[in-house]
Amino acid sequence: MPTDAALNQFFDLLRFGSISTDSKYKDQIVACADWLKDKLNAIGLEATRYETPGHPIVVARGPRRDGRPTVLIYGHYDVQPVDPLTLWQRPPFNPGLENGIVTARGASDNKGQIFSHILGVEQTLKETGDLPVNLIMLIEGEEEIGSPHLAAFLAAHREELACEVVAISDTGMIAPGHPTFTYGLRGLAAVEVTATGPDHDLHSGIFGGAVENPATVLARLIAGLHDKNLKVDLDGFYDDVKPLASWEREAWQHLPLQELDLLKMTGAPALRGEKGFTALERTWARPTAEVNGIGGGYQGEGTKTVLPSKAMAKFTFRLVPDQDPKKIIEIVQDYFHRNAPPSVRLQIVPGHSGEPYLVDPNAGFGLAAQKALGRLFPGKKPALIREGGSIPIVADFKSILNADTLLLGLALPDCNAHSPNETFPVAHLDLGQNLNRYLLEELAEGK
Amino acid sequence: MPTDAALNQFFDLLRFGSISTDSKYKDQIVACADWLKDKLNAIGLEATRYETPGHPIVVARGPRRDGRPTVLIYGHYDVQPVDPLTLWQRPPFNPGLENGIVTARGASDNKGQIFSHILGVEQTLKETGDLPVNLIMLIEGEEEIGSPHLAAFLAAHREELACEVVAISDTGMIAPGHPTFTYGLRGLAAVEVTATGPDHDLHSGIFGGAVENPATVLARLIAGLHDKNLKVDLDGFYDDVKPLASWEREAWQHLPLQELDLLKMTGAPALRGEKGFTALERTWARPTAEVNGIGGGYQGEGTKTVLPSKAMAKFTFRLVPDQDPKKIIEIVQDYFHRNAPPSVRLQIVPGHSGEPYLVDPNAGFGLAAQKALGRLFPGKKPALIREGGSIPIVADFKSILNADTLLLGLALPDCNAHSPNETFPVAHLDLGQNLNRYLLEELAEGK
Repeated sequence: MPTDAALNQFFDLLRFGSISTDSKYKDQIVACADWLKDKLNAIGLEATRYETPGHPIVVARGPRRDGRPTVLIYGHYDVQPVDPLTLWQRPPFNPGLENGIVTARGASDNKGQIFSHILGVEQTLKETGDLPVNLIMLIEGEEEIGSPHLAAFLAAHREELACEVVAISDTGMIAPGHPTFTYGLRGLAAVEVTATGPDHDLHSGIFGGAVENPATVLARLIAGLHDKNLKVDLDGFYDDVKPLASWEREAWQHLPLQELDLLKMTGAPALRGEKGFTALERTWARPTAEVNGIGGGYQGEGTKTVLPSKAMAKFTFRLVPDQDPKKIIEIVQDYFHRNAPPSVRLQIVPGHSGEPYLVDPNAGFGLAAQKALGRLFPGKKPALIREGGSIPIVADFKSILNADTLLLGLALPDCNAHSPNETFPVAHLDLGQNLNRYLLEELAEGK
Repeated sequence: MPTDAALNQFFDLLRFGSISTDSKYKDQIVACADWLKDKLNAIGLEATRYETPGHPIVVARGPRRDGRPTVLIYGHYDVQPVDPLTLWQRPPFNPGLENGIVTARGASDNKGQIFSHILGVEQTLKETGDLPVNLIMLIEGEEEIGSPHLAAFLAAHREELACEVVAISDTGMIAPGHPTFTYGLRGLAAVEVTATGPDHDLHSGIFGGAVENPATVLARLIAGLHDKNLKVDLDGFYDDVKPLASWEREAWQHLPLQELDLLKMTGAPALRGEKGFTALERTWARPTAEVNGIGGGYQGEGTKTVLPSKAMAKFTFRLVPDQDPKKIIEIVQDYFHRNAPPSVRLQIVPGHSGEPYLVDPNAGFGLAAQKALGRLFPGKKPALIREGGSIPIVADFKSILNADTLLLGLALPDCNAHSPNETFPVAHLDLGQNLNRYLLEELAEGK
């Protein structure tokens, strides 16, 4: 169990409503960054808050000595929005601890995970007065909106941030007690599409039939995104998709996370997706076209017989190596423009995007990470997995700092990241604290 | 121009927020019914407010004498909801008069039209102390939600409401100054469909691909409602559709309302609908499948990468003679159930419905109505049209009271019924007042 002081501080961190996508929460974002800077200074690092055109970035450094590797630990202090608020069992920014589980927005993603690394560094510095490596911690506030200013920040501070390897705990463990090394991530490309027909809502009796319904038009465009095998049906969409290796397909069949688990975790009546792939393969190594939100016309109580003026849908396309988000956004725009009938005007607004990521887990620092995980759970071989989520900045670390990234997740599969009632087991604060110590030791050895 | 007193009273009537679909407005509904009862008593009719399981019905009677026909004038005092409120140029229940145009929710549909009949009856009674026919006025408060209690009310009061013919002004004039007799209406069947996949919103990265997206599923079901010629593609949907007569197709080509007018009125970039029919034919004599509203997932600012738990759509199917709403709802339910994948649970809730309507305009009381319209606009032949909207109770008058209905509309095509900024020309109060007088005279003659 973490100390009372550590737990109280974790709760303080969770109380900041640091929602990055909504400008109403700007004060909370800034206050959260300042809290982290103060905490990192207090444990003996040298911390600075950097301004960006968006939300601040906090960077902290440990003691620097020649002859040992520089390791950058990345995390983010911003969180997802909280709606629908009615589904939360407690206010999302009023953290609670029950049966060893902390509930709050950001508990897993990413405050709990980055805070456990801070606890690890604090402990090592207290015990030894030094760290085994030259450490940089970089904690940003725009991960949930696609890190729009991080790449420019890395480029502008390329020399101060030069490092041999990056470590991130922002992914999941395959199952409780099962050490997990994530060697691949999906990328993403976001697009919002609005179809406008008539310039105001019309009486569906007086005009229905003469004027085409933009909600129906949008539905047809959404329907056209997939073929009958539930493959994405856009020209060129799969051109750059790297096929799954046979060792991956084989290994994933034996993981302690299978379709029954997914059914239980999601509450869906059935799993269904692209033909020819298992559910894990579909989420980890196959791209998707997902509707995140759709709206148009009358959504209130009862009936209103309107033919709506417009309908909109928000999409994200999850991408896999070697798909290029820019190319995918072009393909998507082209699809919508080519297929929209003359009865609607389309507005297409591209949103954030991120590159997919894949490294060899059995080479270089990857082996050191596997050793650290092995020490954390003696006798257990770490699961080698990919994940379906996106951490777009992993590609930036590679291209700008020329550093590979180790993804060592501490979240559990049922932690409700991005959903109501997000959780983090309090025991995972200890786990992350130990992981931080073993990892820095193994990376120092692995140099 | 109406008298100041008449105009003030019209504004009083428009100030009631008598929205029938929303239970918040119940007080306004009841107050509006009482206002009408008092007004009808004040002009010399004998008015009563009847309770129903829903909103009240006001019935008023004129002097009864043997040997002359009984005419029932029907209207409704309830109105459509007002959202989106931001598009109104003035508060919808704060009527205003500018350049001869009254703007308020309900101005045309139906308060302006029924109030002009009341003014007509008031004038005739004041001038002659009698009316040419035995008059019944019936004004209800549930037309916009499908008149769920009117049929039972007619049946329960079959003898007191016995009449030879019904007259309704709740339709439109084909163009300003152009007398119009509507001999056909579309019916309607409403259905709300909710598709639920996972039991909570999911992270679209972690689960996207494994779990099917219910918004996408719903979009596919909507897309499947039409074939590539934009015909409704449901088995049996057109089985009972009466083909257009050749005289109708010929006459409608020469009406002063054509595709350019529809484009201007709607602001749509293009008209588009079922292949093989003109826009007027599609709205007046062909059935539709219309999405009135759709919603699911995140509709706020920015991006939220969720795979939504559910998506819903509200539909109305506009029907033409001799389609049966009950049969159509069965066809629609069957379509959704047969085509929904196992990845979603469907909830289908049928809403209100109404029969389509068609009479011979050149027989019986229809000829009397044409004469009254001829007197209103000397030298102009009334346009014989159908309309795309629905007045379901017209079928009830036929089946319960065995009376045909004359539809003599006073609304203009650009009156924004059911839309923001609904209007009614103040001159049409006079028009309706005169129509009432001529109509009662001609119906007395036509007996």
